[in-house]
Amino acid sequence: MSFLLSLLLRRICLFAARQGCLSHWEKLSSISAQKWRRLFFKCECFQKGGAFKFRGACNAVFSLDNDQAAKGVATHSSGNHAAALSLAAKLRGIPAYIVIPKGAPKCKVENVMRYGGQVIWSEATMQSRESVASKVLQETGAVLVHPYNDGRIISGQGTLSLELLEQAPDIDTLIVPISGGGLVSGVALAAKSINPAIRVLAAEPRGANDAAQSKVAGRIITLPETDTIADGLRAFLGDCTWPIVRDLVDDIITVDDEEIIEAMKLCYEILKVVVEPSGAIGLAAVLSDSFKKNPALKNCSNIGIILSGGNVDLGGLWDSFRK
Amino acid sequence: MSFLLSLLLRRICLFAARQGCLSHWEKLSSISAQKWRRLFFKCECFQKGGAFKFRGACNAVFSLDNDQAAKGVATHSSGNHAAALSLAAKLRGIPAYIVIPKGAPKCKVENVMRYGGQVIWSEATMQSRESVASKVLQETGAVLVHPYNDGRIISGQGTLSLELLEQAPDIDTLIVPISGGGLVSGVALAAKSINPAIRVLAAEPRGANDAAQSKVAGRIITLPETDTIADGLRAFLGDCTWPIVRDLVDDIITVDDEEIIEAMKLCYEILKVVVEPSGAIGLAAVLSDSFKKNPALKNCSNIGIILSGGNVDLGGLWDSFRK
Repeated sequence: MSFLLSLLLRRICLFAARQGCLSHWEKLSSISAQKWRRLFFKCECFQKGGAFKFRGACNAVFSLDNDQAAKGVATHSSGNHAAALSLAAKLRGIPAYIVIPKGAPKCKVENVMRYGGQVIWSEATMQSRESVASKVLQETGAVLVHPYNDGRIISGQGTLSLELLEQAPDIDTLIVPISGGGLVSGVALAAKSINPAIRVLAAEPRGANDAAQSKVAGRIITLPETDTIADGLRAFLGDCTWPIVRDLVDDIITVDDEEIIEAMKLCYEILKVVVEPSGAIGLAAVLSDSFKKNPALKNCSNIGIILSGGNVDLGGLWDSFRK
Repeated sequence: MSFLLSLLLRRICLFAARQGCLSHWEKLSSISAQKWRRLFFKCECFQKGGAFKFRGACNAVFSLDNDQAAKGVATHSSGNHAAALSLAAKLRGIPAYIVIPKGAPKCKVENVMRYGGQVIWSEATMQSRESVASKVLQETGAVLVHPYNDGRIISGQGTLSLELLEQAPDIDTLIVPISGGGLVSGVALAAKSINPAIRVLAAEPRGANDAAQSKVAGRIITLPETDTIADGLRAFLGDCTWPIVRDLVDDIITVDDEEIIEAMKLCYEILKVVVEPSGAIGLAAVLSDSFKKNPALKNCSNIGIILSGGNVDLGGLWDSFRK
């Protein structure tokens, strides 16, 4: 971590949130170019299940009528949506069938099991995920709850803006990780309905920059493959999320994996908050040259950063303490 | 992490604190022996400087009169007190002279420098620390602020109890890391003045169990050497802290390093909070058999755990993401 960055990140105080926790630092006193900026963190790693996904999953599960709900819910996901759906289903007392591609992060699979989700394995390809999921739906009659391309999910994620703007009404800019677009769509819809002047920026890894490409092309672009450590940011936009991203997201900032790692490090070392790579990308974006040197973003002075989740395999860290 | 433990640690919500942050989980629903227990976390890792030490250092620095303060403050410390004193001195606009033994954790030395403390190196032995410090005091006329054996420090640390018991008035038991005894002395004095029936337990590493031995012997015991990963818990009681520990600390629970590592893991994986080994020892104590099977502790039902700090070198973790 550069010394300047670490200085930049001092002075933190923490506020409570309804579900997550917001931390906030008053001054970026050490980098003159940014010293008038204030950053507010919405710590969705403190959310139930360790990520924002519980918002949308809860909204989806509890908006089902009793007949629909009786047969349970299903999804295919390698990550936080799967655990969140399992937890929401458990709270309603209905089954959750989760198709998980082989190679999914261990801690995320453990979360699914912990919350009582029934794991069905598929191959890693999207084709295999979809065909296994479709078989599960046929056999169980469960309702499919898509991780992001679903109005109930988008609305649920939007509750984040309601909370954050109540806690920090001065925020003029929001920075939100983008993958399939469920989070940023909900956040943008809710935030702009409260304050139409608010700026909503998405942050995307360079190795999975389909959303940035889509904005340029004016249509959904998908990629043959993605390459990023941010395992939660590899999905592509859907037909529900694309029009919202196209119309309400003001800009997309792409950062590389090294910038994500540096931002993670700051979260651990200075904020003392555990984030996963996808969760740190908003901070990486604010600290990037693409943000700082962009004249259009010069007047962003109260910036809300969504730390979207904290589910990460810390693997060898524990053994390193045992030596 | 055992599956049971991870279940035990679900259901968290977070509350704000004045300076730190309190997190709290409602139910330990998965371990029947403990399911009626509620745990409250006082997250001093979110404190300025990343540890509770800022409380005492601030109290000491701001209680000096102008003449005393003018020449600055000094201490010898390998850790969080040094950084906290530097920061408090910086806020008052006076110099801080910090004697640091070689081999101190890198992140803690960086904190001292970040806050403008003037670092003077000594050898690692207590003798060298003291002789270098005494030379610094002679040369500068600075006021020595001992890390724990000082009434101003003890009082400052006690503010933690005032906050915690305001936030969670039902707490019947506090678990506090013990090293030189400054924190637990302040916490016990303040907590028992509010609620004389409150139980104050100290948590100590087995490899530095001088306080537990002192309680048994009825006098201060020091050890020829200590062996624990909890680098903040290697000091011995002083003549100010010993009488308070003797009279107000109800029991001392010793845990081994493996239990500390498991508790750290739970803090990172479930609470999503970054703690240092010393900071996790209170949770380790609550989860230990010595706690759970102690009949005298059977009726501890609302337990406040002090996560005392979060300054830890995560070393190879970042490189592991780069592979």
